[in-house]
Amino acid sequence: MLSVVARPLGLGASCCRGSRRAIATVISGNKASKLVRERLKEEVEKMKVQFCGFRPSLVVLQVGDRDDSNLYISTKLKAAAEVLHSIMSVNENQTVHGLIVQLPLDTVNHINSELVTNAVSPEKDVDGLSCINAGKLSRGDLNDCFIPCTPNGCLELIRQTGVSVAGKHAVVIGRSKIVGAPMHDLLLWNHATVTTCHSKTPDLPEQVGRADILVVGAGRAEMVRGGWVKEGAVVIDCGINYVPDETRASGKRVVGDVHYASANQRAGFITPVPGGVGPMTVAMLMENTVQSAQRFLLRSQSHG
Amino acid sequence: MLSVVARPLGLGASCCRGSRRAIATVISGNKASKLVRERLKEEVEKMKVQFCGFRPSLVVLQVGDRDDSNLYISTKLKAAAEVLHSIMSVNENQTVHGLIVQLPLDTVNHINSELVTNAVSPEKDVDGLSCINAGKLSRGDLNDCFIPCTPNGCLELIRQTGVSVAGKHAVVIGRSKIVGAPMHDLLLWNHATVTTCHSKTPDLPEQVGRADILVVGAGRAEMVRGGWVKEGAVVIDCGINYVPDETRASGKRVVGDVHYASANQRAGFITPVPGGVGPMTVAMLMENTVQSAQRFLLRSQSHG
Repeated sequence: MLSVVARPLGLGASCCRGSRRAIATVISGNKASKLVRERLKEEVEKMKVQFCGFRPSLVVLQVGDRDDSNLYISTKLKAAAEVLHSIMSVNENQTVHGLIVQLPLDTVNHINSELVTNAVSPEKDVDGLSCINAGKLSRGDLNDCFIPCTPNGCLELIRQTGVSVAGKHAVVIGRSKIVGAPMHDLLLWNHATVTTCHSKTPDLPEQVGRADILVVGAGRAEMVRGGWVKEGAVVIDCGINYVPDETRASGKRVVGDVHYASANQRAGFITPVPGGVGPMTVAMLMENTVQSAQRFLLRSQSHG
Repeated sequence: MLSVVARPLGLGASCCRGSRRAIATVISGNKASKLVRERLKEEVEKMKVQFCGFRPSLVVLQVGDRDDSNLYISTKLKAAAEVLHSIMSVNENQTVHGLIVQLPLDTVNHINSELVTNAVSPEKDVDGLSCINAGKLSRGDLNDCFIPCTPNGCLELIRQTGVSVAGKHAVVIGRSKIVGAPMHDLLLWNHATVTTCHSKTPDLPEQVGRADILVVGAGRAEMVRGGWVKEGAVVIDCGINYVPDETRASGKRVVGDVHYASANQRAGFITPVPGGVGPMTVAMLMENTVQSAQRFLLRSQSHG
């Protein structure tokens, strides 16, 4: 796997007031993702030169709402068969290195999304959501799988702080397939002691208070209060929630799962929303696609 | 999935002295596994009657040390090919419902055990060790996978205490593919808040002290001391360690990963070693095999 070199952000100059850290250092996902994109651009240029015009290629499969009326009982089956057929043909296409299926699928004709996700060839599953990639990540085979983009981006942001993960107590809130569950795995196999919390956790403030590293993917606006956060912790906020705001033309604004204004009084490092995890997620999708293309080239060389 | 009905052990009569619980209730794996085996026997009898002599069948593939000398460089490849060929033929054999590959593999000719484990058809992988089954378990698709036998047996023993898992704080020590990692998943998806500890955890006694439910699969003799254990906790010990004992004819005896004599002064429930997790592991392998046979019969009926 490509290793991403940690580059401290160099934003520390304004983070201390007197003898006590009063406001957290902001971990900018915009800056960090720009660095990743620049590095990937260089790698793609190298591939192009070395392998005569070769380019990493990503296909995004989107199954839209259908305008035609749902006249026949077989429409549902036909829709599923069509989707699976598209996936198979992309799986076989040697010029494509990544395939992601946009979820949720067609909202009119319900299609089994597990079936569709697992139809993507594991070698092209740059979202890392198939059972095989999830199984490898969960059991520690990190060099042989694709890591889902959001947790991979979170780990990259944590690395940028210069805080080491090994031996730390990390707390993950949420256990979704896209964020919480793979985030647990990634922190665990980077040797943190990891606690996973969720909707059935009765003492969330106490659990959060023990976290040296806190990753929140709960999907509830500003649920983590600043007072819960351990002094000096690294706080990574994966939430994207819309709340009413009459001062905006749109009538709403985006907030995370962490109450930012109070949490940045206690955290050592914190990601903003927007401009934190979001841009890193996109950068990691590009990273996985380039990695897939590089693996493809390696396989072609060793076989040919 | 077959649900196992929790039966309280009814061993509580001698567990209290005065107003304070002084000695933990022993969770007998021998008793619990006997109940499982009896239930499975009945189910197999039913299958036999209903499907004319049908029997669940399990194949254990063991790759032994080779006596013949390792003369040729191709021996290793040949050995791997032979193993894979055996697996494929069992995968295709309609009369076999479970296949486990005994690990470690051949110690003379090193064979990639990941490759071999993943060659077993997921529908016959009653050990639950393939990537696909691990991926499903780790992401919460528990009804659609095989759960590894040791953690499945541990959960069954926890259920027998009558202590509910949901909302509890569970601590797992160890992150192996066979015990720790799947145990985390199983407790998490039964709605415990779960902390995974391991060799890099700096504050193990404090972590253990917060556990309502403690499962230890560390592989180190008596490493968990009684003083660490939370008063009234459920303690499940997966360790099997041999320590010197000159009072025995064999010169050794078996102990767990928990220091039993001190831990049973604080725990509410505790498994002994031997006679705790061990017999339940074997019973769960039988359980998975019967389940696999039942799924096979269901598929046959729906297809024909």
